[in-house]
Amino acid sequence: MTEKTDKPRSRRDACPPSHVGLSVTRVDAEDKVRGTARYVDDLTFPDMLHAAFVFPGVAHARLKSVDPSPALDMPGIHAVVTAADIPGENQVGCVDKDQPLLPEDKIRYTGDAVAVVVADTPALAREAALAVRVDLEELPAVFDAEEAMGPDAPFVHSGGNTFLHFKVRKGDVARGFEEADVVIERAFHTYHQEHSYLEPMGVIAVPEEGGSITIYGTMQCPYYVQKAVATVLGVSLSRVRVRQTVTGGGFGGKEDAPSEICACAALAAWKTGRAVKLIHTREEDFYRSSKRHPMSVSFKLGATTDGRLTAAEIRVVADAGAYSTLSPVVIFRTTAHATGPYEIPNVKTDAYGVYTNRQTTGAFRGFGQPQTIFANESVLDEMAERLGMDPMEIRLKNCLAVGKHTATGQLLTESVGLPETLEKARDVSGWVEKRKIYAGDDGRIRRGIGVGSIYYGVSLGAKGLLLDASGAHLNVYRDGSVRIAVGGTEMGQGLLTVLSQIAADSLGAPIESIHVDLVDTSVVPDSGPSVASRTTLMTGNAVIDAATKLKATMGEVAADMLGVSTDSIEFRNGHILGGDRSLTFADLANECWLRNVNTAAEGWYAAPKSTFDENGQGDAYAVYSYATHVAEVEVDTETGEVHLVRVTAAHDVGRILNPVTLEGQIEGGVLQSAGMGLYEKMKTNGGDITTPDFSTYIIPTAMDVPEIESVFIEARYSKGPFGAKGIGETPAMPGAVAIANAVTHATGIRFHELPVTAEAVRLALSRRTDS
Amino acid sequence: MTEKTDKPRSRRDACPPSHVGLSVTRVDAEDKVRGTARYVDDLTFPDMLHAAFVFPGVAHARLKSVDPSPALDMPGIHAVVTAADIPGENQVGCVDKDQPLLPEDKIRYTGDAVAVVVADTPALAREAALAVRVDLEELPAVFDAEEAMGPDAPFVHSGGNTFLHFKVRKGDVARGFEEADVVIERAFHTYHQEHSYLEPMGVIAVPEEGGSITIYGTMQCPYYVQKAVATVLGVSLSRVRVRQTVTGGGFGGKEDAPSEICACAALAAWKTGRAVKLIHTREEDFYRSSKRHPMSVSFKLGATTDGRLTAAEIRVVADAGAYSTLSPVVIFRTTAHATGPYEIPNVKTDAYGVYTNRQTTGAFRGFGQPQTIFANESVLDEMAERLGMDPMEIRLKNCLAVGKHTATGQLLTESVGLPETLEKARDVSGWVEKRKIYAGDDGRIRRGIGVGSIYYGVSLGAKGLLLDASGAHLNVYRDGSVRIAVGGTEMGQGLLTVLSQIAADSLGAPIESIHVDLVDTSVVPDSGPSVASRTTLMTGNAVIDAATKLKATMGEVAADMLGVSTDSIEFRNGHILGGDRSLTFADLANECWLRNVNTAAEGWYAAPKSTFDENGQGDAYAVYSYATHVAEVEVDTETGEVHLVRVTAAHDVGRILNPVTLEGQIEGGVLQSAGMGLYEKMKTNGGDITTPDFSTYIIPTAMDVPEIESVFIEARYSKGPFGAKGIGETPAMPGAVAIANAVTHATGIRFHELPVTAEAVRLALSRRTDS
Repeated sequence: MTEKTDKPRSRRDACPPSHVGLSVTRVDAEDKVRGTARYVDDLTFPDMLHAAFVFPGVAHARLKSVDPSPALDMPGIHAVVTAADIPGENQVGCVDKDQPLLPEDKIRYTGDAVAVVVADTPALAREAALAVRVDLEELPAVFDAEEAMGPDAPFVHSGGNTFLHFKVRKGDVARGFEEADVVIERAFHTYHQEHSYLEPMGVIAVPEEGGSITIYGTMQCPYYVQKAVATVLGVSLSRVRVRQTVTGGGFGGKEDAPSEICACAALAAWKTGRAVKLIHTREEDFYRSSKRHPMSVSFKLGATTDGRLTAAEIRVVADAGAYSTLSPVVIFRTTAHATGPYEIPNVKTDAYGVYTNRQTTGAFRGFGQPQTIFANESVLDEMAERLGMDPMEIRLKNCLAVGKHTATGQLLTESVGLPETLEKARDVSGWVEKRKIYAGDDGRIRRGIGVGSIYYGVSLGAKGLLLDASGAHLNVYRDGSVRIAVGGTEMGQGLLTVLSQIAADSLGAPIESIHVDLVDTSVVPDSGPSVASRTTLMTGNAVIDAATKLKATMGEVAADMLGVSTDSIEFRNGHILGGDRSLTFADLANECWLRNVNTAAEGWYAAPKSTFDENGQGDAYAVYSYATHVAEVEVDTETGEVHLVRVTAAHDVGRILNPVTLEGQIEGGVLQSAGMGLYEKMKTNGGDITTPDFSTYIIPTAMDVPEIESVFIEARYSKGPFGAKGIGETPAMPGAVAIANAVTHATGIRFHELPVTAEAVRLALSRRTDS
Repeated sequence: MTEKTDKPRSRRDACPPSHVGLSVTRVDAEDKVRGTARYVDDLTFPDMLHAAFVFPGVAHARLKSVDPSPALDMPGIHAVVTAADIPGENQVGCVDKDQPLLPEDKIRYTGDAVAVVVADTPALAREAALAVRVDLEELPAVFDAEEAMGPDAPFVHSGGNTFLHFKVRKGDVARGFEEADVVIERAFHTYHQEHSYLEPMGVIAVPEEGGSITIYGTMQCPYYVQKAVATVLGVSLSRVRVRQTVTGGGFGGKEDAPSEICACAALAAWKTGRAVKLIHTREEDFYRSSKRHPMSVSFKLGATTDGRLTAAEIRVVADAGAYSTLSPVVIFRTTAHATGPYEIPNVKTDAYGVYTNRQTTGAFRGFGQPQTIFANESVLDEMAERLGMDPMEIRLKNCLAVGKHTATGQLLTESVGLPETLEKARDVSGWVEKRKIYAGDDGRIRRGIGVGSIYYGVSLGAKGLLLDASGAHLNVYRDGSVRIAVGGTEMGQGLLTVLSQIAADSLGAPIESIHVDLVDTSVVPDSGPSVASRTTLMTGNAVIDAATKLKATMGEVAADMLGVSTDSIEFRNGHILGGDRSLTFADLANECWLRNVNTAAEGWYAAPKSTFDENGQGDAYAVYSYATHVAEVEVDTETGEVHLVRVTAAHDVGRILNPVTLEGQIEGGVLQSAGMGLYEKMKTNGGDITTPDFSTYIIPTAMDVPEIESVFIEARYSKGPFGAKGIGETPAMPGAVAIANAVTHATGIRFHELPVTAEAVRLALSRRTDS
C-alpha cells in the first residue's frame, strides 16, 4: 500500500456521517405507542410462581426469629425463603459489604424484608406474607443525619454512623477569605426525592439447564444484578444470565436497587426449582428503592468587589439511610463538584456519608450534585446581589473554560462549552430585559427570572466503581443487516436509537436493518452501569471500535472486489466506494459470507484513567458536560403558588447525535428539576413514609410543563463518539436552583430548603409582612 | 521479546491437556435424567396460540382454492394462514428454489400443507383444520424413481423429473475392466429410512419489539431457519432471532426440515401478533420430515486374480421425493464416495436425483453413503469370494492410505487410519478364527461374521453449501468463569461437553465454570449446519481461535503480574505459570477486569477450500474419517430371523476427545445401522405411508442391542481441534452391510435389498431349498 498524495486520506474523514445529527425516530417508539412493548410484568414462564416480601415494618430492631410455619400452612404456598436458605453469601452491598439480602439479626429500616413467600398467585403470596411470625425487639432509632453523627445516637451498624468522609483541599481557604471583600455563608437543606419512574421494579427468575439461572427484569445495571445473584446463590458468574426487559424509566433508581429484588426472586426460584415473579407495588418501591440523598450543605463563599471568587468552604452531610448502597460514588461526585462550575483558587470541601434508620439513598439523576448546586448557585446569586452585579455577569467572570482549573486542580484542555451556555441562555431567554422588567412587578402576581449553571464529570471518575469500560458485539448478516449486542441499557433515554445511528454511520450500513438488543450479560462482558451520563460515550465508542474492526476485515474483500487498494475504500451510507466503482453494503456482506469471512466483531472502550488524591486533587473525570438553565416564574403572592412559565436550557453536549431525543432528555430533566424545586417533598414520620404514593407525593404532570427552549452548544470531545459527551444527567441539575433564584427575583426572599412549595412561599411572604 | 533457547517454546506444547481425552460427564446429563431439560413443547409464552396444518392428503393435484371460512366460523379460531398471507417469498427450498412453504397451485406429495390454522388450543386448531375447504383436482402421480425418469411419467415440477446428475470420471473404465480377470455387476436397492429421533419437530414463534421475531425450536441448523423465516416474512436477517431449544435428536432429520414448520409458525405469529406454538405429531413427522433417500445402485467391479481392483462403474438413482431439499448435497457425497474407501484407478460414477410424488428425502446420518456402501461392500465381498480371498485381505490390499488417491483423484497426505481400523477390527473380533468356525455351522441356528469399511469426507466439501465456516464467542467473567456462545448445535451427540473440554484446555480454565449456550443466531455469525460430522472440527476450532486471542490479551496482564515476558506465560488447567510463580485463572480474570481489559473474544474457523471439477475430480473434502465394523449374527434358518450378536466397531477419529461420548456415538450408530440392515422398511401405498408410527415401522430397541466393542484409532488431523476429526456420521455407516455380509456368511445367500428382514431371509432360504 502506498500513500497517495493526490487523494488524501482525509477524503474519508471529510465524508459527513449520514445519520448522526439527524432526528431519527426512536426505534422503540412504535412498540411503546402501540402497547406491544413487553415489560417484565407482561411476561410469563411455564409453571411460574409469585413472590411477596415479609416486612416487619419497623425502623430499628433486633430480629429474634422468623417463623414461616403459619404461612406454609396456607393453601397455594410453595415456600417461605429466609436467610437460612441462602446458599452463597447473604450480601448485596454494591460498594461496601454492609447490606444483607435478608437481615438475620437486625432490622435497620422499614424497607428491610426478612423473608420472601412463594405462592401460586401474587395475592396468596401477599396474604401469607402477613402470616409469617416475626419476633423482634425494637431499638431506639435515628432519623436525622446530623443527629446520627452525634455521640449519643444509636448505631445503625457497629462502628458508628459516619462511614464516609471525602475532602478537597485546594489552595488555602483562610487566605482566600482574607483576600475576599465579601464573604457569605449560608446553610441549605434538601429532602428525599423519589425517582417516580413509570414502571415499578420487578423481576422474573427462571432456573435453567446446567444449574444456571436467567434473570429477566427492569433495570439499569444488569452486571450488578449478575454479581448480586451469583454472590447470593454461591455460583459462578457464568451460571447467571441477566436479560434486561423493556425498562420503564430508571433515573438512578434502578442502578443498584434491582439487585435486591432480583436476588430475592433468584433465591426463591433456586429453592422451588421454578420460575418466580416478584413485582414491587408502588408503595414497596417508595419504601425499598434508594432515593436522592437529603443533604445539609453549609456553603461559605468569598469574592472581591469586582466579583472574582477567592475561596469556598463547604460542608456537606448526606443522609445515606440504613445502608451505604452507592453513597461512596454519589458523595465523591458531590465532593468533587461542590463549588459549582467556577474556578476558585482556594477550596475546602468536606462531605460526610451518615447512616440513619431511614430509606437508603443513592443514585438519582444528577448523582449527588443538585443538592450542592442549590447551595452554590444560591450563594453565588446572593453574592452578585451584594456586589451589585448581574447573576450572569458573576458567572461569566468565574466560569470554567479551556485553560481553567476545577476545584480538584484539573486543567481543562478541551470541550468546555460552559461560557457559551451562559451567553446563549442569557440571549435566548431575553434575560437582560426581563431581569429589569420583572423587578418592577408589584401586583399579586410577580414575575421572576433566575439562572443556574452546572458541570458534570461524565462517566464514573476516579472514585467511581472500579470497572470503567464498555463492550459491544456487532454481527453483520449476509444480507447486510446488523444485529448489535451492547452492555449499556435503554431505559427510555433513547440509547437504542442513538446506537443505531452511531452503528450506521461508523459502519456505513443502512440504519433500517440495524437491530440493537437489550442487554444480555451472556454476550457482552461487564460494561459497568448505565449511569453517570456514560452510556452514549462508552457504549457508543465500543460500537465504533467493533465497526472499525469490521470495516478493516470487510474492506479487504471490498478492495478485492473493486480492484483497488484497501486504503482507497470508503464506507458510506450503505455503499462502499473504491476508485470510481461502488458496491452496496449488502453485496459486500454477501460476498464476505461466500468467502467464509467472519463478519462479527467485538468492540471495547475503556475510559481514560482519572485521579483523586488524599487532598481531593487530581483529574477527577476525563471530561465534563456543562449546562445553564434560565427559569421564569410567576408567583402568586396571595397563595404562595409558583407557576413555572418558561425554561431556557442551554447544554454543551459535545456533539448533537439526535436533536429530538436530546430535546426529550432535556424536557424530562427540566420537569424533574421542577419537581425537586417546587413540589417533591417526601414526608416521613419516624420510619414511616406518609407520602408513599402519587396522590400524596406530588410530582409535576403534563399540566405543569413550562415552555421549554432547548439550546445546544457543541464543544466537541475528541474521545467521544463523533465528538459527543453525556447528556443523561445534566438536564435535571440546574433547574431547581434556577427556579429558586427566579422566585427570589420575584419575591426578594431567599429560600434555603427545596422544594420551594406554595406553603413555604406563603409562609415566607407572611413572615416578611409580619416583620 | 527474545527467543530463549534454554527454555524452548515446545514446553508449552509438551504440557498435556487436562480435559481433552478424558471421559468428562456430559454437562447436560443431569437435566435429561431429572427431567429438568426443557424441550420446545415444555415452553409457553404469554398469550400463546396453537397452530395446526391443513393437509389435503393427496400425492399430486392441482390446487384450485382454499376456503378457510368454515374454520374461521368455529369458536377459538384466530386465523387461517394461507399462501396469500405471506409477506415475503413463498419459498423454503434449501438449495434449489423449488419448494413453496404453502403450495399455491399444486400439491406434490401427501406431506404438502396448504394452510395453517391458529387457535386457542392445539385440539381446536386440528379440528378446524379439517373444516378448511380445499378444492383440488387430482393428477396422475409417480411413486418410483426409475419410472419417474422415463418419458411417460407425469412431471412433478415443470421441466422433467431428473433434476440432478453428478459424475466422476477417473481413468478409463473400459480399459480397467479389460485389465480385470473377474468382473461382477450387481443391482441393489434400499428404502426410505425414518430418523426416529425421540422428539418430534416443534417450534414457538414469538413476535418481539422492533418488528422482529424470535423462533424457539428443536433443530440442527438455526441459520437455515433464520434464512427461511426472513425470506418468508420478507424481513432482514437481523430481525429474525433463532434460539435452539434442547433438542431430542436430529440425525439429519432436523437439518432443513425445521425451516418449514418454523416458517409456518412465524407466519402465523406475524399474522396474529401473538406467540404461536406448532408441534408435529409423530405421524406428521413421518409425513413431513425428509428421509434417507431410497436408492437403486448398479455396481460393476473389476479385479485381477491377485485381488487388485482395476475398475468400478456405478449408477445411482436416488428418489428425492417431491422437492429437492438437500438432495444436491447428499447426492454429491454419494457420488464422491460411491466406490468405497479403495484406490481404484478407473472409475465411472453417475448419480441422479429424481423427483417423485413421495416424501422428500435429504440428510440422514451417513448422508447418502450407506446406500452405496451396501452396494460396494457387498460386491467386494462377492469378489473376494470369487477370488478365494478373505474379505479382510482384499480390503487391506486396496484400501486408502497416506499416499493413495481417492476416486476423485485426491491425494491423501495425512490422517488416514483406515488400514488400522481393518487390522484392529479383524484382531479384536477374532475374525480369522470365527470366519472358519462359523462356516462349519449346519444346525438351525447358523452363525456368520461380516465386515464393512467406509470413509467419510468431513464437513461440507466441494459441492456442499457455500458457507463452510463456524464461529464462537467466549466471554470470561471476572471470577474466571466462562460463558461460550457457538454456532453448532447440541442435539444429543455431546457437543456441549466436548466444547467445554476444548475450551477448558485451550484456555487453561477450570472446566466446572464453563457454560456453553445453545445456539442463538443473534450472537454468533452463520456457522453453517450442524451436520456432516463437522461440528466438533469447525466449532471446536472456532473455540480454540477465540481462546488463543484471549490468552494473548490476558497473557500480557499475566506477564505483568508475574514480572516475566509474555512468551514465558503458560496457561494450564486453571493456573497461569510464568517463571517460578503462578496465578489462578480466576485471579488473572479479576485483574483484567480491574484493568478494564476486555476478556471477550470472537473465534472463527473456515474450512480449507475443496474442489470437484466437471469430471468429478478434485480434493472433494479436506479430510476423511474412516471406520470398519465387523458384525456377528445368528440366523434362525427356520424363521429367517437374524440376531445381531456382536459388533466390533473400529474408528479412526483423529483424536479421542471424550471416550465415553465417543462410545455413545458409536453405539447409537451401530443400532441405527442395525435398523437399516435388519428392520426399518417404510411401507407405502401410493402416497400413503402405511407404517407411520413405531408400532408398524420397526426400529431396534434396547432389547436388540448387541455386544458392542468400540476400538479407536487416532490418526491425528493437523488442522483438527487437538487432532480430532468428525465422528457424527461414521458409526451409522458400515454396520448395515457388515450385517448383510454376515448373514451371507451364515447362509451363503447374498441380499440385494436392505433391510434383510426375517421375511426376506426366510423367503431366500426357501427359494434355495426349492431350487
